[in-house]
Amino acid sequence: MSRIFKPGFRIGILGGGQLARMLALSAHNLGAIPYILSASEDDPAQQVVERGFLGDVSDLRALKAFSEHVDVITFESEFIDCDILEAAVPTHQKRIFPSLAAIRTLQDRKTQKELLNQYKIATSDWSLVQDELSALDAVETFEFPVVMKKRRNGYDGNGTFIIKNKKELLMFVKKQLANDDAFIAEKFVPFDRELACLFSRDQYNHVLQFPLVESLQKDAKCFWVKGPIQHKKFSQWSKKFKLLLKKINYIGTIGVELFDKDGELYVNELAPRVHNSGHYSMDALPLSQFDAHIRALANLELPLELPATSCFAMVNLLGSKNTSTPVWELPPNTYLHWYGKKENRAGRKMGHINTLSTNPEKALKLALQNLKGFNL
Amino acid sequence: MSRIFKPGFRIGILGGGQLARMLALSAHNLGAIPYILSASEDDPAQQVVERGFLGDVSDLRALKAFSEHVDVITFESEFIDCDILEAAVPTHQKRIFPSLAAIRTLQDRKTQKELLNQYKIATSDWSLVQDELSALDAVETFEFPVVMKKRRNGYDGNGTFIIKNKKELLMFVKKQLANDDAFIAEKFVPFDRELACLFSRDQYNHVLQFPLVESLQKDAKCFWVKGPIQHKKFSQWSKKFKLLLKKINYIGTIGVELFDKDGELYVNELAPRVHNSGHYSMDALPLSQFDAHIRALANLELPLELPATSCFAMVNLLGSKNTSTPVWELPPNTYLHWYGKKENRAGRKMGHINTLSTNPEKALKLALQNLKGFNL
Repeated sequence: MSRIFKPGFRIGILGGGQLARMLALSAHNLGAIPYILSASEDDPAQQVVERGFLGDVSDLRALKAFSEHVDVITFESEFIDCDILEAAVPTHQKRIFPSLAAIRTLQDRKTQKELLNQYKIATSDWSLVQDELSALDAVETFEFPVVMKKRRNGYDGNGTFIIKNKKELLMFVKKQLANDDAFIAEKFVPFDRELACLFSRDQYNHVLQFPLVESLQKDAKCFWVKGPIQHKKFSQWSKKFKLLLKKINYIGTIGVELFDKDGELYVNELAPRVHNSGHYSMDALPLSQFDAHIRALANLELPLELPATSCFAMVNLLGSKNTSTPVWELPPNTYLHWYGKKENRAGRKMGHINTLSTNPEKALKLALQNLKGFNL
Repeated sequence: MSRIFKPGFRIGILGGGQLARMLALSAHNLGAIPYILSASEDDPAQQVVERGFLGDVSDLRALKAFSEHVDVITFESEFIDCDILEAAVPTHQKRIFPSLAAIRTLQDRKTQKELLNQYKIATSDWSLVQDELSALDAVETFEFPVVMKKRRNGYDGNGTFIIKNKKELLMFVKKQLANDDAFIAEKFVPFDRELACLFSRDQYNHVLQFPLVESLQKDAKCFWVKGPIQHKKFSQWSKKFKLLLKKINYIGTIGVELFDKDGELYVNELAPRVHNSGHYSMDALPLSQFDAHIRALANLELPLELPATSCFAMVNLLGSKNTSTPVWELPPNTYLHWYGKKENRAGRKMGHINTLSTNPEKALKLALQNLKGFNL
């Protein structure tokens, strides 16, 4: 396999949101050419590229046409339609990263859980839920509260239901299971804190491991991240996880959400793509999660580790119902990334800020203080 | 003065080369919108923006039309035509950064030298050269070798003539002075090494000082930079220089080339724009020289200092006569910035690589080793 990179390498990105935008900027830096396929020319990623294609990322004809213009294809959401993509891109095994095989396994919570179980990577107990009977069985096994998750297309709490009692269970069966029989139940983990970590794997079996971070969700959405975090089980855990990545031949960046409970690490979810918990890397590290993803799929080598860095924090800038143009005072030590979304909607991820300091707590304090300058 | 920033702030950049490209990428990150005015849609900066305008940056009509689409205007070369720009943009005092007044002074080596003399900032002795007589006078005063520099439009050694003897002097008079009477003569400084430093000043009189670096020129072009460099006179020197920036109300990033001779610092040249010696900042610092320039002209505050960083080196990737598409092996610990130039010409700045390490020498060694992977 050749490690040769040609400038002008064409990278197709499916989707036009902030993750696609930040991937495109990394591609520009490297001298690769990002191509975006998304629905609207107003999309965040369309604003930073010369070559925008308008179309639906699950439309066979649009995908076929798009694939003819690019060397490789990646995506900002793991919930792509693998069947359509496979039909549209017959050479997908050499051109789509991460591979459709890996994505098929990881985009379905059932097969994702099975994979974790297979590699003995601790995660909450779970069972398949397809009807009232299996839902009742799950509650009997795991007891309340039980977590019901849609097998596909869940994000930021969408598709996740924490069922605390019989009444809520009946409501879930009536409202959710009646329309969709594809759920899993998970035993609820009363975690001490949520952690996250990114890995990026190149095509030469090098895995770049990013620092462990702590994250806090607010209304089921990432609110802040701080790091790096020390955890005595992390090194052992990450060895096992890297083996899993190798076995499924995962190429690119992957986000792992973890629960820390009584000093043990449990995988909450895997997000096979660049991930909100890794946005700090744009300012805290010389190679960001986006840079690493682009390098991996452009057939370049990744380093195994990055130089030691400052401590850092990241806070998401979430929209309010105020739809007027936001304005702000940007404090001087705040590194802003604004996504250019045309509409400021309640809870919408509009941008994020990074801060650096001598320890994670100071960085977070600074970020939260500086958040006040943003009138969203 | 308000520190309020609106997303979607429109930043017009005159020129389409690599400096414009890297400025545009910084604008994207911040959620500002970069607009490029340059001659060809193939230009490096045109490739990374949605809004490209084709035209000549010294064409009155093109400038007028361009200025109507943007909130502020900046440039990648200080050799803009200030008269035309002033005529094209009547509101230039509030919209062009750095100001035309500052640029008029700095783009002419005569007035630049006068400014340095006025603020008692050490620089080589000089005199005005407009004809054979003043050229002979200069040689009598400074002795051979004497440095003749065009007052305007010099860069990377173009427009600079090191005159070592009478024969060369006569040739200079005949070939250069016959066509252009606008030169200065400088006493040659047999420097121990060349240093450089960047400053970036915002609209609130905050000056962000970047680390001092050492640079090596090859064929009068920047070849490598390493840093940070310690110099016992630097702190005292930079205080004086910051005062100068304040007095001329300079807004944006400025590059300073310095000679280090017997422990003393002498200004070689000021480059009132982002500068090749500061490209390391893209990976070694959380705020690059491009980020700082964009922030300054978008009316945002700059920090006075940046968090301590790794040691670093930068090596330019210069083209060869080989015009075929270059290909390379990109070593994993090398941070590449490739400009997307369509033609690979001898000596042309095609891209640069940054490396990080625990000291400047190690970083440079790594960069020079890794340069071998680039088949230019």
